[in-house]
Amino acid sequence: MGLVVQKYGGSSVADAEGIKRVAKRIVEAKKNGNQVVVVVSAMGDTTDELIDLAEQVSPMPAGREFDMLLTAGERISMALLAMAIKNLGHEAQSFTGSQAGVITDSVHNKARIIDVTPGRIRTALDEGNIAIVAGFQGVSQDKKDITTLGRGGSDTTAVALAAALDAEVCEIYTDVDGVFTADPRVVKKARKIDWISFEDMLELASSGSKVLLHRCVEYARRYNIPIHVRSSFSGLQGTWVSNEPIGDKQVEQAIISGVAHDTSEAKITVVGVPDKPGEAAAIFRTIADAEINIDMVVQNVSAASTGLTDISFTLPKTEGRKAIDALEKNRSGIGFDSLRYDDQIGKISLVGAGMKTNPGVTAAFFEALSNAGVNIELISTSEIRISVVTRADDVPEAVRAVHTAFGLDSDSDEAVVYGGTGR
Amino acid sequence: MGLVVQKYGGSSVADAEGIKRVAKRIVEAKKNGNQVVVVVSAMGDTTDELIDLAEQVSPMPAGREFDMLLTAGERISMALLAMAIKNLGHEAQSFTGSQAGVITDSVHNKARIIDVTPGRIRTALDEGNIAIVAGFQGVSQDKKDITTLGRGGSDTTAVALAAALDAEVCEIYTDVDGVFTADPRVVKKARKIDWISFEDMLELASSGSKVLLHRCVEYARRYNIPIHVRSSFSGLQGTWVSNEPIGDKQVEQAIISGVAHDTSEAKITVVGVPDKPGEAAAIFRTIADAEINIDMVVQNVSAASTGLTDISFTLPKTEGRKAIDALEKNRSGIGFDSLRYDDQIGKISLVGAGMKTNPGVTAAFFEALSNAGVNIELISTSEIRISVVTRADDVPEAVRAVHTAFGLDSDSDEAVVYGGTGR
Repeated sequence: MGLVVQKYGGSSVADAEGIKRVAKRIVEAKKNGNQVVVVVSAMGDTTDELIDLAEQVSPMPAGREFDMLLTAGERISMALLAMAIKNLGHEAQSFTGSQAGVITDSVHNKARIIDVTPGRIRTALDEGNIAIVAGFQGVSQDKKDITTLGRGGSDTTAVALAAALDAEVCEIYTDVDGVFTADPRVVKKARKIDWISFEDMLELASSGSKVLLHRCVEYARRYNIPIHVRSSFSGLQGTWVSNEPIGDKQVEQAIISGVAHDTSEAKITVVGVPDKPGEAAAIFRTIADAEINIDMVVQNVSAASTGLTDISFTLPKTEGRKAIDALEKNRSGIGFDSLRYDDQIGKISLVGAGMKTNPGVTAAFFEALSNAGVNIELISTSEIRISVVTRADDVPEAVRAVHTAFGLDSDSDEAVVYGGTGR
Repeated sequence: MGLVVQKYGGSSVADAEGIKRVAKRIVEAKKNGNQVVVVVSAMGDTTDELIDLAEQVSPMPAGREFDMLLTAGERISMALLAMAIKNLGHEAQSFTGSQAGVITDSVHNKARIIDVTPGRIRTALDEGNIAIVAGFQGVSQDKKDITTLGRGGSDTTAVALAAALDAEVCEIYTDVDGVFTADPRVVKKARKIDWISFEDMLELASSGSKVLLHRCVEYARRYNIPIHVRSSFSGLQGTWVSNEPIGDKQVEQAIISGVAHDTSEAKITVVGVPDKPGEAAAIFRTIADAEINIDMVVQNVSAASTGLTDISFTLPKTEGRKAIDALEKNRSGIGFDSLRYDDQIGKISLVGAGMKTNPGVTAAFFEALSNAGVNIELISTSEIRISVVTRADDVPEAVRAVHTAFGLDSDSDEAVVYGGTGR
């Protein structure tokens, strides 16, 4: 008998009907002979409604109380889900993050899991129960306060529990059929990916793919927990994310997993920086001290005549104001002429482990963009990813062009695969 | 510096505006130099909405999960209240029943408090915080499951915390101005009571007065915690409930505290019972085994010719079906002719410690009812209470007649007081 962890997002349990539908699916998994642990998010818009209430009573809700408030959402959905399962004649018990042993640090609103001690879950399973666990929440190790894990936290709860319970698989149920070769809203011919490696999934997640968050995939890779992303509205197989393809049939690994895009970033250019050691450090120390994460960085070639250079970097638009303020405040310490802020940029990324051994990929990527008339402003690469920054307006066309060029379109028979003809 | 426990009901925190108004009142108490612990109920209709959701997923929601669900309500209101207080520049921390050390037995949906270990509350207070505690909920001693205390549970939470923290007073804020000499919806001339003894309040509570529940008053009496029932919408003094009048000014204790009525009961008459030892025991053992609480009991004089008698008792209407079924099932064991069920009855009770020493009270009570043309069906008395059962339709008129007869009307100057002329 295997142990399966299933996670259902808010859209899957948006109302009583959704909860009953999910309950049936959970009971199916139990009938198939599995021990089943279910992680559930708050119903539909519950979290947004609670945030709205908080803003009505206080413009700056405090971390500890805000977490206490938000965790009410999962408390509701998990209790209802347990009731719905019991109504189908199966035993179920619900557990808060704290009861499930999800121990975190004390950083409210974006706590990190530091340990999982699922003793009560184990007992509930051994007694024949289906265990329902509140996603997104934990309890802090030092103060025993309720914490939340931040955006996408329920996925992380599911993977962390799967690791602590040594589960066979962590199934992430969502409102899409799986991970696609590109965002289907942009690329109509995007294909569902049957299997993708942790490495490629990590790159897609950090390049703008929204299906799984980086933190959750990172956790799964560390503990080698296979993830199965699938729809709660259909019975279809979704996308497996793991070290190696699961099961008997050989899945050929494509050279390219997919094309991701991201229009949530802005670009800041620090103009007229003295081209001498320590300047870049001064800039990025200023940014880091303001607790802003940056993404891509490019330093232009210095103009020999002036001894000055420009440094550009990208960061979330939401952090733009803070970064500009921090740099201006430290202008004399850093030494620069001016700042340019541009939030009309987009990032297109090509991801695939096959790049390592296929030197032609980079050239083909730039050719595709060039043929589509897309101008490139910044470039950054990893071993298995190429990203470029373009005008935001160019993003949809650029993504489609690249998707087609690498044979990813659903009507294409030219998918580039390992061990293929090398085309 | 004193320690004050305040309790706010759902109608006081029904929306963001209510929460902000309550926050201001709490801060006032803090500014007056008190340590302040606040017990809060769920916002307005939250609990009803959660119950409605539960019924949508399961016709018979299970106890453990139902408690988990309902406690989300207080989690929301307490976190919002803490935020609102912090927004006024004061420190506040919210605590679940479990965090506040409210330890209960394991009877879900109507758990009883068996211990309060408010270590975290004490620490929060010593650090200068206002402590906000979720009412109505606790954690079971043996299984560490979340429990709820049943109807009126938040009042009990407040009194129990006041006892454990040795508070000076437990203030129960509600949407009425205090305890009245009769229900003001029935008796327009009902007067607010300034002070009432625990004993009289207990009798009023068990006779149909809804302002405070019996369990909460019983708890306060056991630990000698003065209760101050008052409106959260005005700054007026409400009703003090305690052993002795509080403060300097001498409050004269009225012979009669008030008139309570109750139309939530039904009457069952067991007809044709053999008038021999053990018969009544057989009936009430049957009822007790069905876990039904009964109120008044009357056995008619036996008709000598038949050797048969009738036994009548009253019980909550909601238990009527169950009681009839239990008696029918055991008809041969008990031995009776038939059962009569009557849910068109009402109970009127006159309460006052002065009865003990004023033998004329009972006569005056019956005269008042007689003058109002009200027929009496059952009578029961305690040392400080007389109750009669009448037709439900007669109740309003009967209550008004008794209220006037004992000088309780607000325009009367004939209030009957100790040490008065004895009239």
